[in-house]
Amino acid sequence: MQGNQPGGGVQSVLRGLLPSLVSPRSTAIFLAKSGSPRIASNPVDCLMPTHADTFQSLCRRFREARLLSSSAELLEWDERTGMPPKANAYRAEQVSHLSGLSHRQRTDPVIADELASLADWEEAADPHSPTGATLRLLQEDFEKESRVPPALVQKIASATVRGQGVWDAARKANDYARFKPMLDEIIGLQREFGQCLAREGQTTYEALLDQYEPGARAAPLTEVFRELRSALVTLLDEIESSGRSMDEPLLQVGYSVEKQKVLSRRLAEAIGFDFERGRLDETSHPFCTTLGPSDCRILTRYHERFLPTSIFGTLHEAGHGMYEQGLPEDWFGLPAGTYASLGIHESQSRLWENQVGRSLAFWERFHPLMQELFPTQAKPASAEDWHRCFHRVERSLVRVEADEATYNLHIIVRFELEQALIAGDLSTDDLPAAWDDAYESVLGIRSPTVADGVLQDVHWSAGLFGYFPTYTLGNLVSAQLYEAAEKALGDLPGAFRKGDFVGLLSWLRENVHAHGRCYSPDELVERATGEALTAQPLIKSLRDRYLAG
Amino acid sequence: MQGNQPGGGVQSVLRGLLPSLVSPRSTAIFLAKSGSPRIASNPVDCLMPTHADTFQSLCRRFREARLLSSSAELLEWDERTGMPPKANAYRAEQVSHLSGLSHRQRTDPVIADELASLADWEEAADPHSPTGATLRLLQEDFEKESRVPPALVQKIASATVRGQGVWDAARKANDYARFKPMLDEIIGLQREFGQCLAREGQTTYEALLDQYEPGARAAPLTEVFRELRSALVTLLDEIESSGRSMDEPLLQVGYSVEKQKVLSRRLAEAIGFDFERGRLDETSHPFCTTLGPSDCRILTRYHERFLPTSIFGTLHEAGHGMYEQGLPEDWFGLPAGTYASLGIHESQSRLWENQVGRSLAFWERFHPLMQELFPTQAKPASAEDWHRCFHRVERSLVRVEADEATYNLHIIVRFELEQALIAGDLSTDDLPAAWDDAYESVLGIRSPTVADGVLQDVHWSAGLFGYFPTYTLGNLVSAQLYEAAEKALGDLPGAFRKGDFVGLLSWLRENVHAHGRCYSPDELVERATGEALTAQPLIKSLRDRYLAG
Repeated sequence: MQGNQPGGGVQSVLRGLLPSLVSPRSTAIFLAKSGSPRIASNPVDCLMPTHADTFQSLCRRFREARLLSSSAELLEWDERTGMPPKANAYRAEQVSHLSGLSHRQRTDPVIADELASLADWEEAADPHSPTGATLRLLQEDFEKESRVPPALVQKIASATVRGQGVWDAARKANDYARFKPMLDEIIGLQREFGQCLAREGQTTYEALLDQYEPGARAAPLTEVFRELRSALVTLLDEIESSGRSMDEPLLQVGYSVEKQKVLSRRLAEAIGFDFERGRLDETSHPFCTTLGPSDCRILTRYHERFLPTSIFGTLHEAGHGMYEQGLPEDWFGLPAGTYASLGIHESQSRLWENQVGRSLAFWERFHPLMQELFPTQAKPASAEDWHRCFHRVERSLVRVEADEATYNLHIIVRFELEQALIAGDLSTDDLPAAWDDAYESVLGIRSPTVADGVLQDVHWSAGLFGYFPTYTLGNLVSAQLYEAAEKALGDLPGAFRKGDFVGLLSWLRENVHAHGRCYSPDELVERATGEALTAQPLIKSLRDRYLAG
Repeated sequence: MQGNQPGGGVQSVLRGLLPSLVSPRSTAIFLAKSGSPRIASNPVDCLMPTHADTFQSLCRRFREARLLSSSAELLEWDERTGMPPKANAYRAEQVSHLSGLSHRQRTDPVIADELASLADWEEAADPHSPTGATLRLLQEDFEKESRVPPALVQKIASATVRGQGVWDAARKANDYARFKPMLDEIIGLQREFGQCLAREGQTTYEALLDQYEPGARAAPLTEVFRELRSALVTLLDEIESSGRSMDEPLLQVGYSVEKQKVLSRRLAEAIGFDFERGRLDETSHPFCTTLGPSDCRILTRYHERFLPTSIFGTLHEAGHGMYEQGLPEDWFGLPAGTYASLGIHESQSRLWENQVGRSLAFWERFHPLMQELFPTQAKPASAEDWHRCFHRVERSLVRVEADEATYNLHIIVRFELEQALIAGDLSTDDLPAAWDDAYESVLGIRSPTVADGVLQDVHWSAGLFGYFPTYTLGNLVSAQLYEAAEKALGDLPGAFRKGDFVGLLSWLRENVHAHGRCYSPDELVERATGEALTAQPLIKSLRDRYLAG
């Protein structure tokens, strides 16, 4: 009958009845489980698994855990893109169940035995080979997890769920006192947690930071951040005294959302995001999520009255996505196929967003496309016009709304305060004043409300101490990598003007993406750029772009 | 920074690192698992679970299995709506793993013990109460499954996977001989399967049919189908000799797909599909899938040159969806919250598609909307014009393209042939000729190719014997239910003309949806309509509509 497809109905309706019998997909499971037992080719090994077998078994556990967690991520992607409004309660149950099963799989006690029996495996001797690094990191992760008592894990889980609720209410009521006891509880638990996690010679704060940025140390980070802070404070003064106009005519007009969608897709394609292995959607809070080795989804948002939101949101998320698309597919779900750290992830998004997307050469390439899509708004706009209007600066209170030149100052404030909180050098009683003083000293402004002051971020209420510095690390590394790539590849702006972004992407693939977690973030940066983390490339890049033209 | 949302990044990136600690959602699992042991209120029961506890535990297993299978269904929905093309291999692994875990959960050996200990539970004594029916059906399903040796399940799974591949190749090559040995193997396995499943007094074919249509018997079905067959053959002759034009000007023109989307949404909303608990999307093979108690998704397709595809596809799938939306939410994942049978499911889709959507009153209501959406094409069209153009008839070879008046003849041919194949009364050598003869006798046409003849459907290659009759059962029941509803509610066309479809939907909710699987399809039909399955209402409905005007 026209308009029906009983063929479709066969598969969808039947699955509920007898999935094991009629769904071709479930067959693999049945066949795999009932396969004949492995027959060892070497008679001596008979019934004794080889190292390679044990490693396979270990990898299988983590791959299966990833099948579950990646499915949970689709459930969440769907929730944030178009799930029917009343579906949320059951959706939470689905995500929770899958996440729980995945966790159980990753912490199966048999893993300890498998790891122990692989301790002397020669093929894993190189700690940076995919096999060696995978085994080493699974071991480290497992040990780390086993140092934390389950009772503490539960206390943290419970406190951070309550914490986010209390924070949300306190922020809406602009009432810090309401949040303070909760924050005390969370800081106490995080301190205890960090003490459990800490290895020999690590401070409590470093142990927390290590979760997001493996191997990062507070002292060198503090030094680089101080150098950046002082350079940014100076830069801000210079920009302001240069008399650049903050009123950009190009930002005073509206841009149709439909056309912005076309633009976002064209830009993401141009820089190398692979739409055969990913997609771009709209959401209210942009993010990037990976649902499989060839399924990376980026999401952006569109404001008719503020064009930069979609352009730089898309370039940023595409940068995250291209990193995910460049990780070794064969190692998906295992350390060798996983991103190195949050800082390195952010370095990829920031590189494409700022080093590439805010360069003059980029707009020399794309200002004709802007004229094509927005003929009335963009007709008189040159590459220089676009470049200038995407470099507006403002001393503002809220981190997520800050521009590129001031963003890191917001982070540095948080990095200093959270270290003092964990170390016990700052009490939560004194925190709001310390927050405002710090803003005064770096940005010259104080928040009239705690809602836009100390209560503006969700992180601490969620137990995320040691997370903030990864944002600035990402910014620092993005500029350092870009500088090294330019040294290796030559004239990058010239390439961009010709629409060639593949040279840069290939360099990143080779020097960053292909290594997964096989090197620590520090090692990765040093191998790729020839030097340790430094603030100079970022400072130079900001000065060049913000003081030019 | 404008255009970024580090807040979003926290949740999505972090989940991969330490999901147990930072994802609020996974907390529920942790807390639930470590909750203090239940303390029985009655000291005598201490440590001995009550019947109610055991029933809860049993239900929990099936609800958890449904969390997994409903997640697998989202994976498949996504695959059919917009998954990146290269993601399919990993997607198959995800679906397979989740389906396998769900199956394992539903067949956990402990279920047998729980069922046994509930055998004398008084609260479940009423076999049609939600509790009683759930327990009775879980018991029946479990017994049925346990009658089938696992080795046979594997053989069937393997054969049907290969079968669909071989069928597809044979169909493309228009070569029945290539498929025949595979079909022999599948028929042999299905016969064996049916013999395992068969209860006392059931034929092998009935045991197969019982999977899709619990309790259905071949003899009464054969009788009703014969009556229908003869009435349809007559009707077809009458329509042709009535001289109705087959060239409908309204179907000779194009209709913008964007406008068709608006129309589909408006119609689905109008008849009562709840968009707060569901959504409507586009796909190449329309279907309906349920991802949670408040998340039912229907999919349709749009042909610019053939408007009926989207209109009736949408009404059809919305009918399926409204049934799912009307099932008892509290019993989601359990028999009392599950549809009664495939035939009953199809009765709901056909009722809204044909009894409502092809009625003159429906188009009296909606022809102004058609004029609004399609002013140039629909300007001169009256309700009668639309009604007439949606009642075109053609003697055609392919079931999925057949119109309403001939569709059941395609099914009756298959029903007769597959019974003979399973009984061993027809060999696969003779099948192609038997197929063509049957088509000649009911439709007066023979297929020039086997691709459009005996090889046109995937069903038999997938082991689906006993599935075809549920389509015609659905058509029969749709008309019988509609007639009963009209008897109970009075002037339904009058209500439709006023845009009132809620009376009919409420009647279906009360008489069909609310009962889940608590009654067998036969019982459900008899309780709702006051009589056993009969062909008369469908024959009358087709005659009224096809010979009118």
